[in-house]
Amino acid sequence: MASRPIRSGVTARVLDVLGAFTAEAPVLGLSDIAKRTGLPLTTAHRIVGELTAGGALDRGEDGRYRIGLRLWEIAHLAPASHGLREAAMPFLEDLHEVTRHNVQLAVLDPDDPGEVVYVERLSSRDAVSIVSRPGSRLPSHATGVGLVLLAHADPADVETALARPLRRFTPHTVCDPDAVRALLAQARSGGFVISDRQIEAVSLSVAAPVRQGGGPVVAALSIVVPAAGTNPHTWVPAVRAAARGISRALPAS
Amino acid sequence: MASRPIRSGVTARVLDVLGAFTAEAPVLGLSDIAKRTGLPLTTAHRIVGELTAGGALDRGEDGRYRIGLRLWEIAHLAPASHGLREAAMPFLEDLHEVTRHNVQLAVLDPDDPGEVVYVERLSSRDAVSIVSRPGSRLPSHATGVGLVLLAHADPADVETALARPLRRFTPHTVCDPDAVRALLAQARSGGFVISDRQIEAVSLSVAAPVRQGGGPVVAALSIVVPAAGTNPHTWVPAVRAAARGISRALPAS
Repeated sequence: MASRPIRSGVTARVLDVLGAFTAEAPVLGLSDIAKRTGLPLTTAHRIVGELTAGGALDRGEDGRYRIGLRLWEIAHLAPASHGLREAAMPFLEDLHEVTRHNVQLAVLDPDDPGEVVYVERLSSRDAVSIVSRPGSRLPSHATGVGLVLLAHADPADVETALARPLRRFTPHTVCDPDAVRALLAQARSGGFVISDRQIEAVSLSVAAPVRQGGGPVVAALSIVVPAAGTNPHTWVPAVRAAARGISRALPAS
Repeated sequence: MASRPIRSGVTARVLDVLGAFTAEAPVLGLSDIAKRTGLPLTTAHRIVGELTAGGALDRGEDGRYRIGLRLWEIAHLAPASHGLREAAMPFLEDLHEVTRHNVQLAVLDPDDPGEVVYVERLSSRDAVSIVSRPGSRLPSHATGVGLVLLAHADPADVETALARPLRRFTPHTVCDPDAVRALLAQARSGGFVISDRQIEAVSLSVAAPVRQGGGPVVAALSIVVPAAGTNPHTWVPAVRAAARGISRALPAS
C-alpha cells in the first residue's frame, strides 16, 4: 500500500469510508468515520462530502451519515441480487407459501469461505425466529447453507474455512474440523444438508445446492424449521426441488 | 468540478465507475467502463483494479466486471434497507399472504422527486405480472406509491416532478400536471391512492403512506391487482392498515 501512488490510496480510502458502516453502526458521525478508518479528520471530511454529493452517503438532519439510496441502487446490480435473487424469488416464494417456514438463499463470501452471506430471506410471523437477513453473514461451518456451499467449494477454500477456531453457537454446533469434513462428504453424496440446532437450539435447517448452467454450485437454499416435533427428512424433497428449479432458471452466466 | 482539487476528482471518478453499471448493462468490460465514464483507459483500469481489490467490483472469468458482493453487503445498511425494509417485511408478508397479490414498498428518490425507487416487492406465480423489482425505479406521477409520496412531499419537489414532460405508459396514465395535482389533493384527504391502469393496462395499484415516528411520510406501500373485475376500494383498508403497522414499527430515526 505504501508503495502505491497517491491516487490509488484515494480509491482505497473511499472504500474504507464506506466500509466503516456496519450492521451494528449503520449511522456514523464524521469523527466516528475518521476513527474507524484511521483517516485524518480533514481527509475523512473531504471524502465524506464527496460521497454525499454523489449520493453514496446521505447526511441526516442530525448531521450524521448513512449509506445512500444511490449506492443501494447500484449495489442491487451485483449478480447475487440482479441475477441470482431475481431467478430465485419465485421458487423461494413457492417454498415459503407451501411450508410457511423461513426460506433463505445464501452465497459463500468469495473473500472468506469461512462465512456465508445471506442474499434473501422470506419469513412470516408464525415461522420460528431466525437471525439471518439479507446482507448479514454467519459462519459456514455452522449453517446448512454454509455446509452445502463448502461441500462444493474448492478444497483449498474448505481448508481455509476450517483452519480457524470454529465458533460454537449451541451444544449441537459441530466445531471439530474432521466432523465438519464428514458432514461435507455426506452433503456431496446425499445432495442436501440437515444442520441440526447448530445456530439456535430451537431450530434446524435443511439446505440444498443451486448450480449455474448445470455446473458449479453458486448458492444454497435452505428452510429453517422448529427442531421439536419435526422429521427433517420431510422437508428434503421440497428444498431439493426448489433448488433445482432455481438452478434451471439461472442465466448461464 | 474543474476548480476542485485533484483528489476530489478521484472520489467522483470512483462513483462514476460504479455508476457506469446499470440494470440494462450489469456486466461491463474495461473499455465499456472507460466509454461510459469518459475516463482515459489507463485511469479506468487503475480505478477498476482498486475497486476489484476492495471487493466493490468482481472480475468474472470472462474478464468483465460486475458489482461485487462486498459493496452489496455495505449498501444493505442504507436506511431504506436496514431500517425501513426490515420493519416493513412482516407487514408486507402478511398483506401478501392474505391477498396473494403483488405487494411493494417504495421511497421517493431524494435527488429526483420525479422518480420512485422500489425497496422491496413480494410477488407470486399467480399474481399479475409487474415491472418493478428492488432497486428499480418508475416515474412518480404514474404510480400509486409515487402519487402517495408526492402528496406528502415538499411543494417545491412536487413542482420539480411535474415540470418535466410526464411520460405516458397507457391511455389511462394521467399526464396533465393539474390532473396530477388533483390526485395529490385527493391522496392527502383520503389517506390513499388508487392508480388505475396507469403503468400497465391490465393492473391497478392501491397505495398508502408510511410515516416515521408519526411524522413525515418516508415511504409508500402498495398492492398491485388485476384491473378487471376488481373494486379497488376493497383493498384500501388492508393496505392502509399495513402501512400504519409499518409506521408504528419504524424506529423514530
